[in-house]
Amino acid sequence: MELSERITNITAGGSDGWDTFYRARRMIADGIPVTELNIGEHDIRTHPDILNAMHSAALGGHTGYAVVPGTDSLRSAIAGRIQARTGVPTTAANILVTPGGQAGLFAAHNAVCNQGDTALYIDPYYVTYPGTIRSVGAVPKAIITTPDTAFQPTRAALDSAAPGAKSLLINSPNNPTGAVYSRATMESIAATCQQHDLWLISDEVYDTQVWDGDHISPRALPGMAERTLVVGSMSKSHAMTGSRVGWVCAPEHVINHLINLATHTTYGVAGFVQDAAEFALGQGVSVEETVAAPFRRRRELSLSVLAGQNAVRAVPAQGAMYLMLDIRATGLSGEGFANALLDAEQIAVMPGESFGAAAAGHIRVAMTIDDDRYVAALKRLVAFASEMVEQ
Amino acid sequence: MELSERITNITAGGSDGWDTFYRARRMIADGIPVTELNIGEHDIRTHPDILNAMHSAALGGHTGYAVVPGTDSLRSAIAGRIQARTGVPTTAANILVTPGGQAGLFAAHNAVCNQGDTALYIDPYYVTYPGTIRSVGAVPKAIITTPDTAFQPTRAALDSAAPGAKSLLINSPNNPTGAVYSRATMESIAATCQQHDLWLISDEVYDTQVWDGDHISPRALPGMAERTLVVGSMSKSHAMTGSRVGWVCAPEHVINHLINLATHTTYGVAGFVQDAAEFALGQGVSVEETVAAPFRRRRELSLSVLAGQNAVRAVPAQGAMYLMLDIRATGLSGEGFANALLDAEQIAVMPGESFGAAAAGHIRVAMTIDDDRYVAALKRLVAFASEMVEQ
Repeated sequence: MELSERITNITAGGSDGWDTFYRARRMIADGIPVTELNIGEHDIRTHPDILNAMHSAALGGHTGYAVVPGTDSLRSAIAGRIQARTGVPTTAANILVTPGGQAGLFAAHNAVCNQGDTALYIDPYYVTYPGTIRSVGAVPKAIITTPDTAFQPTRAALDSAAPGAKSLLINSPNNPTGAVYSRATMESIAATCQQHDLWLISDEVYDTQVWDGDHISPRALPGMAERTLVVGSMSKSHAMTGSRVGWVCAPEHVINHLINLATHTTYGVAGFVQDAAEFALGQGVSVEETVAAPFRRRRELSLSVLAGQNAVRAVPAQGAMYLMLDIRATGLSGEGFANALLDAEQIAVMPGESFGAAAAGHIRVAMTIDDDRYVAALKRLVAFASEMVEQ
Repeated sequence: MELSERITNITAGGSDGWDTFYRARRMIADGIPVTELNIGEHDIRTHPDILNAMHSAALGGHTGYAVVPGTDSLRSAIAGRIQARTGVPTTAANILVTPGGQAGLFAAHNAVCNQGDTALYIDPYYVTYPGTIRSVGAVPKAIITTPDTAFQPTRAALDSAAPGAKSLLINSPNNPTGAVYSRATMESIAATCQQHDLWLISDEVYDTQVWDGDHISPRALPGMAERTLVVGSMSKSHAMTGSRVGWVCAPEHVINHLINLATHTTYGVAGFVQDAAEFALGQGVSVEETVAAPFRRRRELSLSVLAGQNAVRAVPAQGAMYLMLDIRATGLSGEGFANALLDAEQIAVMPGESFGAAAAGHIRVAMTIDDDRYVAALKRLVAFASEMVEQ
């Protein structure tokens, strides 16, 4: 009476690299004041206007089974937003509403990967990526990026990994590196997908957090709409992380199969949550800019703090709510630095190693506390690193 | 560039047996007044007290990522309720909160079935069962029950199907038949599972709707807690279908793997929805009885309407919100009868065939409209059948 190999293999048995995270949480539980720069979530809550819209929908009776693909009006609103942002013709038939972006990542891989298929992803990576691939019985294969190319994948690395693979998962703007893939990078990705007949799964949940350059959705590149599944979410754009509402945007025949999958995995998303998401999207771009503004501001503050020193060096922070710092000058690993910083300064950051081999010697700083505390903590972090370099 | 065999195979390519359902919906859209006795959902909405609790939680700030396994307090509340109802020692560590019962069914099968494994289920069945099994790459195998045994599976049928299988899915109280499995049936199921080393997945979402006899959870039988995954939900017990909140109750080591799966498939359930569920459970048994009362009442009314005629015969309606009617005396199939009834009387019911081969010659009547309209419609249904028998 064994469990499935699929489920027992999800974490691959190794350390998940979150030891520092949990150690920080235990310190907080023990009453030690820890400054948490390790949380990938806004320091604001979901706006009360959105919550009131949700409550109105619920009291208004939208508490029974919602249609599984998502309400027509939310699917249309999502499609309209995507078309406006990318120029790609998009209708409700291209959209499946999912209970969050993670559910979209899972559904997309379930749709394209058979048991044993190879599914590519870019390292450094968001922590759930390899496990998501394993959870559909596929085999994750990392494409390593390096600090030298600001963690943008090269055509050579893509082409080297692609033969025999079924899919490629990318994430731009990127968690954890803050990289926003250039047009050249996206064209390499598109060329590789077409040459090697790969499905592209594009996680674009940070698409409203771009500080430098432009967000390019690879679905908008020639020949890509037919082989691209875009995963989106209300979490980051509208500070609705806890509401668990996102989507997959894909060719209609793919969506039809994804609706079958949704019928058997989730049976849809709460109607009142969908109505709240529709209300939020209806508020327009200005709300999205307001939600993104603190990170834009703190990224500028960060560059000021980091100027004129060489102990820590920022990976170009083009997007997302994170700052990836190269701390190799200290002689420590990312994990070693994170642990030492936690002990000495009670500041919690994520070791780069938590996000894959390619991020070794780095730490990820989440810009998710208020400006004053953030600047003070970053200054202490720099001073701490500088002392090490000077020793 | 093919989609996965797993996803393209979910519906197995055949008719889903819902033609009558969609035809009724089109008639309604065309302005024809159809009496819908085909909807498996309460005719009341979620109680405003529950919705207000949800709104309070949301406004109070529970809008960020909730912990993936479920909040400690909701897991404890669910465990406490299960222990109180079954006597089996149960703690929060035995519970994973899921976004609805369907997500629990999927997670349970994902946990125990490898690609290609045989997964058993009982026919007649809730419509998603075979697809749920296929959606994890397993192979569904039906165990046929018959009207002769009031759709309770026999030991012989169970033992005949079990060799080489990995799991058995049961549902008592049963949708669509209304059967509540007797202690003898549950003991046969337990013996089969132990003899053939099967995991048992027990869908108990109708456990508050028992009109005759007692609900027996097979997890409470000797030797079964270690091999049983119980799927539960707030949907039917608290009229919270649209909130998408349910659970899996299983051995702690199974739950630990299911938490890994949840991290990669859903990333948890909205915190404010969990708080609403906790509030609802805290209202105690009387609320559950109030929600169940209309179906208890309509089942009694049904028996009065059906008395003294032989055109349609009720399968003993021991539980759930359905009445399974044997219409073979009319000479029609379930589908033939449902279509004829829809045309002649504008009454929509589900053909038995929608729920599997074993329910051929039957129709499922959902007792989900108000008492007066329900009784009037059932009388018209009986009169319609009687005319056919007399012809």
